[in-house]
Amino acid sequence: MLKYFGAILFSAIFCLAAQAQADGGKQPEQTVIRPGSAPSGKANPDNFTGNVRVDPAFRAVEPARAYGAYVTFEPGARTNWHIHPTGQILIVTSGKGVTQEWGKQSQIILPGDIVVCPPGVRHWHGASPETAMTHLAIGERDPGNPVKWLERVDDEQYKKAAGEGAKAR
Amino acid sequence: MLKYFGAILFSAIFCLAAQAQADGGKQPEQTVIRPGSAPSGKANPDNFTGNVRVDPAFRAVEPARAYGAYVTFEPGARTNWHIHPTGQILIVTSGKGVTQEWGKQSQIILPGDIVVCPPGVRHWHGASPETAMTHLAIGERDPGNPVKWLERVDDEQYKKAAGEGAKAR
Repeated sequence: MLKYFGAILFSAIFCLAAQAQADGGKQPEQTVIRPGSAPSGKANPDNFTGNVRVDPAFRAVEPARAYGAYVTFEPGARTNWHIHPTGQILIVTSGKGVTQEWGKQSQIILPGDIVVCPPGVRHWHGASPETAMTHLAIGERDPGNPVKWLERVDDEQYKKAAGEGAKAR
Repeated sequence: MLKYFGAILFSAIFCLAAQAQADGGKQPEQTVIRPGSAPSGKANPDNFTGNVRVDPAFRAVEPARAYGAYVTFEPGARTNWHIHPTGQILIVTSGKGVTQEWGKQSQIILPGDIVVCPPGVRHWHGASPETAMTHLAIGERDPGNPVKWLERVDDEQYKKAAGEGAKAR
């Protein structure tokens, strides 16, 4: 699990200790996280198809719950189907991607687009077949309610979703 | 208050009704917010110095609490001193800015930098004197615990903070 930031961020959010706690209880202070201050990680291949990099962005400081990570999907890479019990926000920062809610039309996502996935909704997201995609993923710590990872988005589902059926902006 | 998105986002977060509620209780579904889908607003001049634009990004959907807005400070513009009872995350997306915690050295912030302001910490943030700055501000709904707005960052404080005393990356 130490190997996969994806696992830390998406499957076991309770592992993200609040910064104040990590500091041993001393008075919290404002910090500026500079690019390059954390190593890139890889998403857990059990829950993703293809090559997916995870760059940690910020951790929650109690009583705040929100945490964030940049996730970069190489062309064709995507999450499995999954459900966020507390919801998720995705802000596309570069490239071209695809997302789909179970039973709904897929949608092309481009830089500036923000995907709002409410609690309990089954969805997947990833790159387009020929162009990589990076998004900032914002989740909320919710111990006891981890992300529910489901089956892979198989090649047939993916091709259909990324093809002519997709709704573009 | 309707006039100032800043007031909505920074002073009265309890005004941000959960999207599911706004939809009249129907089953929530995934949505993609495209750029240009919400009008730009102005920050409340009671709490800011200079010209500050607020572009809403995403609202909280219960039980999630996180909400976000892009805030653009024209050169020289800045917040008042203030305290977030539940903390705040700032992700600089363009330009050059300055931030400072009470009693601490100011810091220059540039695109890619992430400011983590823990709960209860008194701080301010804004543009540099000659270059505008935009950041995504992420807060969390916490009814009954609104942001505590304090005194202005006066010209002397601002010049000192934005000058040679500032810590750059």
